[in-house]
Amino acid sequence: MAQKLLAAQPFSVLVGARVVAFGGGGATLEVDIRPDLQQQNGFLHGGLLSYAADNALTFAGGTALGPEVLTGGFTISYLRPARGMVLRAEAKVAYSSRRQATCTCELTTLDNAGTSTLCAIAQGTIIAR
Amino acid sequence: MAQKLLAAQPFSVLVGARVVAFGGGGATLEVDIRPDLQQQNGFLHGGLLSYAADNALTFAGGTALGPEVLTGGFTISYLRPARGMVLRAEAKVAYSSRRQATCTCELTTLDNAGTSTLCAIAQGTIIAR
Amino acid sequence: MAQKLLAAQPFSVLVGARVVAFGGGGATLEVDIRPDLQQQNGFLHGGLLSYAADNALTFAGGTALGPEVLTGGFTISYLRPARGMVLRAEAKVAYSSRRQATCTCELTTLDNAGTSTLCAIAQGTIIAR
Amino acid sequence: MAQKLLAAQPFSVLVGARVVAFGGGGATLEVDIRPDLQQQNGFLHGGLLSYAADNALTFAGGTALGPEVLTGGFTISYLRPARGMVLRAEAKVAYSSRRQATCTCELTTLDNAGTSTLCAIAQGTIIAR
Repeated sequence: MAQKLLAAQPFSVLVGARVVAFGGGGATLEVDIRPDLQQQNGFLHGGLLSYAADNALTFAGGTALGPEVLTGGFTISYLRPARGMVLRAEAKVAYSSRRQATCTCELTTLDNAGTSTLCAIAQGTIIAR
Repeated sequence: MAQKLLAAQPFSVLVGARVVAFGGGGATLEVDIRPDLQQQNGFLHGGLLSYAADNALTFAGGTALGPEVLTGGFTISYLRPARGMVLRAEAKVAYSSRRQATCTCELTTLDNAGTSTLCAIAQGTIIAR
Repeated sequence: MAQKLLAAQPFSVLVGARVVAFGGGGATLEVDIRPDLQQQNGFLHGGLLSYAADNALTFAGGTALGPEVLTGGFTISYLRPARGMVLRAEAKVAYSSRRQATCTCELTTLDNAGTSTLCAIAQGTIIAR
Repeated sequence: MAQKLLAAQPFSVLVGARVVAFGGGGATLEVDIRPDLQQQNGFLHGGLLSYAADNALTFAGGTALGPEVLTGGFTISYLRPARGMVLRAEAKVAYSSRRQATCTCELTTLDNAGTSTLCAIAQGTIIAR
């Protein structure tokens, strides 16, 4: 169902995101790192990282609140330039009431040996509609 | 020069961003709202808004710090569903030292009558490399 | 009424905060800068600035949502070391629905000549109970 | 040494904060919950929580960067009304370079049976001077 929702988001289709985990108070998205997702120095564009944080936080909130949610907002801190094969955004619910969920997200890159490197962290609030 | 830098960012080319103002302590980007930038309900995807905030904040920081900058991170609050013809992200430097700049950004949508609607606000820190 | 509410907050009494403006989509608090509000270098403690941001944002939200509000959270960026006679936290509503308000806040210090210096900016979300 | 630094902060003395852990990429502060730290409903004032987040994040950053640090800013999300005997702010370094550290913080309250309840989470950036 989460994968279906993602497939209904044209922008998620454009960047090639997929859901790799959903449920149990968390959601994980992945994006294959392509040249057209980069900035001028060959790293992933920060805006793509922020897209992934936004969407993973929202899906994590959806595990607690159901599918009808809005993203209230979020904060992202960039830690390292992001490069590799795959970007993974792994979000968890820190706390949820009936009306909203506060979630955290770790963004890591995976190289072709499968080694993961933390490149950003985020924190956000998801609101039930 | 700012437009050249943007054109060197493949992800900015993918989403179709342009620089419409740069200098005097601020930078403004615009993105034409296309179907492939939307989420499942026909609104602009929050991740596209966060991309625009990230990039406008970074360009604004660049007006104070020069072209060699990194984005430290930012916070975005979504206010209203975003739709219309054009997304505009207008960022200003609130304060800068030699080493970093703190910037704010207003994200508005313009409809085909040119009416603008505030849909998100952001605040972030840009670091000189 | 806003001053009465502040007087009912023991922590606001402890730090000596006062409401100097309330209404019209904004609220302004002031705190006289005392030695016991400082950190180790003689500047105002960041935690006092964050207190002032939290409370000014909440009061601003209250102008839109009424007195029964909760603070969802906020982001503060420190710009300069804060010193002088008075800390002023001036918050405005950027947008409000029936259920929540997103507000911004500028924190300035005033010296004994009345000159104001911007020392921090904040952005936060206030929720109707 | 961390306790000495805290004792040199008059505002930390005013609110009664203590360092209970420092080192290994993290720092934990505690504050005994007193009536004069509350808001109008008998809960801890959000501004006190934000003080504790600010200071714990800064001390955690100091474990990576040394004692000469500035707090760049932080984001706090309030999860539940905070009450009990003790507020604990436990911060960890997520990543640090020579110049700055990004840290996260969990704020919990402890009741007189020692049960802990998560009441806020925070994320911030600490800068080497």
